[in-house]
Amino acid sequence: MGERKQLRVGLLGLGTVGCGVIKLIEGHQQDLIMQTGYEIIIEKVLVQDLEKKRNCSIEPELLTDYPLEILNNPRIDVIIEVMGNVQPTFEYLMHALSTGKHIVTANKDLIAIHGAELLAEASRNQCDIFYEASVAGGIPIIRALVEGFASDRITKLVGIVNGTTNYILSKMSEEGAPFTEVLAKAQELGYAEADPRSDIEGLDAARKMAILSNLAFHMDVSIEDVEYKGITQVSKEDIKYSKQLGYEIKLLGIAKLNDQQLEVSVQPTMIHKKHPLAKVSGVYNAIYVYGEAVGETMFYGPGAGELPTATAIVSDLVTVVKNISLGVSGRGIVPPYQPKLLKTSAKKVSRYFLRLKVVDQLGVLAKLTQSFTDYQISLQEILQLQDVDTCRVQLILTTHFTSKEQLNNLLATLEQLEIVEKICSVYPIEGGELR
Amino acid sequence: MGERKQLRVGLLGLGTVGCGVIKLIEGHQQDLIMQTGYEIIIEKVLVQDLEKKRNCSIEPELLTDYPLEILNNPRIDVIIEVMGNVQPTFEYLMHALSTGKHIVTANKDLIAIHGAELLAEASRNQCDIFYEASVAGGIPIIRALVEGFASDRITKLVGIVNGTTNYILSKMSEEGAPFTEVLAKAQELGYAEADPRSDIEGLDAARKMAILSNLAFHMDVSIEDVEYKGITQVSKEDIKYSKQLGYEIKLLGIAKLNDQQLEVSVQPTMIHKKHPLAKVSGVYNAIYVYGEAVGETMFYGPGAGELPTATAIVSDLVTVVKNISLGVSGRGIVPPYQPKLLKTSAKKVSRYFLRLKVVDQLGVLAKLTQSFTDYQISLQEILQLQDVDTCRVQLILTTHFTSKEQLNNLLATLEQLEIVEKICSVYPIEGGELR
Repeated sequence: MGERKQLRVGLLGLGTVGCGVIKLIEGHQQDLIMQTGYEIIIEKVLVQDLEKKRNCSIEPELLTDYPLEILNNPRIDVIIEVMGNVQPTFEYLMHALSTGKHIVTANKDLIAIHGAELLAEASRNQCDIFYEASVAGGIPIIRALVEGFASDRITKLVGIVNGTTNYILSKMSEEGAPFTEVLAKAQELGYAEADPRSDIEGLDAARKMAILSNLAFHMDVSIEDVEYKGITQVSKEDIKYSKQLGYEIKLLGIAKLNDQQLEVSVQPTMIHKKHPLAKVSGVYNAIYVYGEAVGETMFYGPGAGELPTATAIVSDLVTVVKNISLGVSGRGIVPPYQPKLLKTSAKKVSRYFLRLKVVDQLGVLAKLTQSFTDYQISLQEILQLQDVDTCRVQLILTTHFTSKEQLNNLLATLEQLEIVEKICSVYPIEGGELR
Repeated sequence: MGERKQLRVGLLGLGTVGCGVIKLIEGHQQDLIMQTGYEIIIEKVLVQDLEKKRNCSIEPELLTDYPLEILNNPRIDVIIEVMGNVQPTFEYLMHALSTGKHIVTANKDLIAIHGAELLAEASRNQCDIFYEASVAGGIPIIRALVEGFASDRITKLVGIVNGTTNYILSKMSEEGAPFTEVLAKAQELGYAEADPRSDIEGLDAARKMAILSNLAFHMDVSIEDVEYKGITQVSKEDIKYSKQLGYEIKLLGIAKLNDQQLEVSVQPTMIHKKHPLAKVSGVYNAIYVYGEAVGETMFYGPGAGELPTATAIVSDLVTVVKNISLGVSGRGIVPPYQPKLLKTSAKKVSRYFLRLKVVDQLGVLAKLTQSFTDYQISLQEILQLQDVDTCRVQLILTTHFTSKEQLNNLLATLEQLEIVEKICSVYPIEGGELR
């Protein structure tokens, strides 16, 4: 037997996912050798605290708290980055690329903000940089967009890309429990972080939608281009009434291309219970892709977790090793080649769900619907509910397609009407476009 | 601007999918150039009948009915094969590979039977051969298995990989209509062929499962290794009673690895209505993948059709062109590296659904269940239905896990019992394993 080729990895970070990477590389070493011809060796691991107890066994001499011991190490070919944060991580990776090291990262914040610079630097140094793990954990959605649909023109992505909020909304829907109660439970179970803001306020999902949109539409989409709103205002009443009309409320990331104009948003959205995304519950993720030629497809799987995320990282590592072996590292990067044209917020078109509290008197519905007619917004469903305790009436209305501009005009008018006590909630409804 | 590089394609076959390929290459030419740097030109198209009316516009001088005009054409770099059949297609492709042409094919029959020989010949000639379109049309499942889950150990695949039978079973389930009636309707609508045997008898699905198993488990699985059974015996009664117990009947391809032993089968199977596969209806396909590390994932999309299938073919073509451009053609082929160990039929373990007609007399249930106890098969659910017209009793029974050997012994015993008038049907039930 000849000498076996070896590939040495520097790992930045040794939290949950870092431990998963070590377990997977060790546990699947034989398969990795069969597929790549290389033995993969963890050379050094950057940690903050050398003494901390870990969830995986690792030789103490492999640990270091000195970044340059990895970044300047000539024996290391590939950096796997699972330390998170934007700084100093960005500087570390730019430095690593400048010395010819390949990168695999799970860092969505970093890619959503500095993706273009990292890719350019990788390309300049003929290095690979892959980030499948940054979106939807174990689902190989980036490969699907970049390679599987390379021949198609994608016109729409709809994603449940944040497991924490999907868990919360699923529980609220199943149990009729209020948001704060379910959030506390989720934190207890480890499905939500102690500081849950980036999840529940939609930022995490927005970053992932920026990354996916970039690849699907070949435009330089960044986090600033994504309009987002979280789930903190979703009430159990909204969930209850949406169900009566056949909808589920999901935190949906939606990216749509119409007349060459792109819109990307994340917000709590109603989706008909028959849509495959409506059935995605718990911490699972799913991405629905609409392509002109392929039509409807959907990719479903775990959105996070130690081993699912590690699967994506180590699969990227396999590609890095294959590219090294073929001598084609960094040659597969296709930068966005379409001009970025964003649809102005006012021009965005959707169906809507409105919940209003109105006074209980004769002719209210007639007056109200007249306002809709004035703005040429046609109604699809109306549900009138009497609240016996308060002598008030709740109205649930769903509209046909209308522009956000028209909707905002209508809402301003409704607020002025004396018969309207309160506009309780407004949700877009996904689906039902004429194609 | 420098001279643009060109890549010339020879197309074998110009049916529905062939026309889709031409439309996609022409319609998306600019995107293909941006992604590959090459202009893609259809150089020649092999057809049987030069005069036939086509579903797409093509210059008549591009057509030929003489295969060697394409196979021996030195200007042609890539062959796209959509003519179908095993012979003479296999000879054509082997010849094309021997002259250094790359292959993209949608031909599942061919790959399921001669895949290993074609891959070996491709490897020998440093040619690429891709066949994403051969399984589940528009779903990039082969890429997901080969690349996306490269780092994981897949232990189970469950697929709805035949759209015709899924359409028929969905309609039977929704409308309570009998098989023959729905089949006739499907033929009218073009969802089933005039000769539907390979679909309804399970052979088509079996071929696809052989291809997927080969890639997922790295074993040289061929069509002979797949036990299969079609849907012709599925009755509307079976569907009705399965629903009462919370199941749908689907034609499932199942490939499972236990103790290094593989079993691959295709047969009508009950699956709980909460399983994501139970909700896949109509002509859609879906493949559920279970990996040790990633856990549960599912891929959903159109299983056939002009443009979905063409998407898979032209995406493969993009990979071929990129590989040519990088000088790494044929270098990505990893032949199966695991020894093929197949589980014997008797050792296969499953839960089962049984429907029996029994005489209506005292103590029948006690006698019957004693037989189950004798073979150590424990029952999960029992449903007793009185048929007032015939004075007979129908019994629906579901079992816990049991080996096929034990089940067969039980069935032989039941057939001998006087109280059992008929064993109407037996179905495996998918799911519920302890992991």
